[in-house]
Amino acid sequence: MTIAVVGGTGPEGSGLALRWARAGETVIIGSRDRERASQTAAKLNQAGHGEVGGSARAVQVSGDENKAACQSAEMIVLTIPFSGHAETLKDLKPALRPGQVLVDATVPLAASIGGRSTRTLGVWQGSAAQQAAELVPQGVSVVAAFENLSAELLHRDGPVDCDVIVCSDDKAAAQKVRALARKIPGVRALDGGKLENARIVEQITALLIGFNIRHKGHSGIRITGLPSESYDI
Amino acid sequence: MTIAVVGGTGPEGSGLALRWARAGETVIIGSRDRERASQTAAKLNQAGHGEVGGSARAVQVSGDENKAACQSAEMIVLTIPFSGHAETLKDLKPALRPGQVLVDATVPLAASIGGRSTRTLGVWQGSAAQQAAELVPQGVSVVAAFENLSAELLHRDGPVDCDVIVCSDDKAAAQKVRALARKIPGVRALDGGKLENARIVEQITALLIGFNIRHKGHSGIRITGLPSESYDI
Repeated sequence: MTIAVVGGTGPEGSGLALRWARAGETVIIGSRDRERASQTAAKLNQAGHGEVGGSARAVQVSGDENKAACQSAEMIVLTIPFSGHAETLKDLKPALRPGQVLVDATVPLAASIGGRSTRTLGVWQGSAAQQAAELVPQGVSVVAAFENLSAELLHRDGPVDCDVIVCSDDKAAAQKVRALARKIPGVRALDGGKLENARIVEQITALLIGFNIRHKGHSGIRITGLPSESYDI
Repeated sequence: MTIAVVGGTGPEGSGLALRWARAGETVIIGSRDRERASQTAAKLNQAGHGEVGGSARAVQVSGDENKAACQSAEMIVLTIPFSGHAETLKDLKPALRPGQVLVDATVPLAASIGGRSTRTLGVWQGSAAQQAAELVPQGVSVVAAFENLSAELLHRDGPVDCDVIVCSDDKAAAQKVRALARKIPGVRALDGGKLENARIVEQITALLIGFNIRHKGHSGIRITGLPSESYDI
């Protein structure tokens, strides 16, 4: 499966790309600037070297302009500041086609328009992911996931102590994304129900950023108290 | 310290009361109906018998009408359906006095007005706890906490696998409530920052209820990735 990470030059996108590349996935870093995308891809290839599935094979990440990256991918992961969310999706629209899965990891932090990173903006549709669902062409499934993963931890080598809550109205697409989530060591993926629930998962990020500021950590969440078969590990 | 649990005849309130009574706290169950409060108190005394701090002493829970319960308490814990939140606080107002701490565990679930338990209502002030802050007399500190604890697990004997995120604009009051939270075995208490953050913690409950419905569990949350001194254990 080919995964395009739109906004893949940023800390969250490049961290996810690194982990997936190490797990053997084909990843394309997308950016408005093709040159920057290629530079990030080169760095990730270096960082991931010799770690694919425990074998000596080098990871293979490439870089491309956002739309071109989307055209050759089955799965598109959005990791962009919320201030560019709607505009980016409108720009990507001609490059998207039915059957693709758009994974939205965007959090509408007030910081994206100069406010605090511990507060979120109200989004008319309820969440960034629901806004995305309005802006993609028909037949593209939107899945909300990866909002709560620390970019810092993704760039380190160890397991990531965090659950990924996956919300979507398309159960098959959600299952694909849960499978992708569990390729990150330490991560458990959970069915978070319908896409509308993304509003809660997105806001948890603001709470986690508050913990990080107060306690100088890289926080995440775990959901406890469910039967073990509830988690995709 | 005397703790009044307003709405203490319900599952969440009686569960908290049981755990605190077992830890040796003096607890008054509050209800609109004094008789029902006394009945719940009698049941809790029976359930908690012989378990206070590991000694053979019986727990001591009493019951009273809500306002009378509040008058003799230093800490008042609200565990009521959101539909009665504003009215109850208006009713309690004459019984509250400066220096008391009002702990709000209320979640504005849509279920409280006939909707779904996996959705929340929009509260003008941002959260139930912030609504409470508007309705208490001056000098009463409002702290949001305990929204995410499973009532079912509170009524069992074992430790509760959940963190309590404590939000308040009064740091001293928040510290008292974190101390109270950690009296529940298994619970770690965390500084969740200002009272305004309660809006996120309240909504997490709706997400947890969704997990419980989909997976038949009693879910909770843990915050990971922070230095150990961040947690009050």
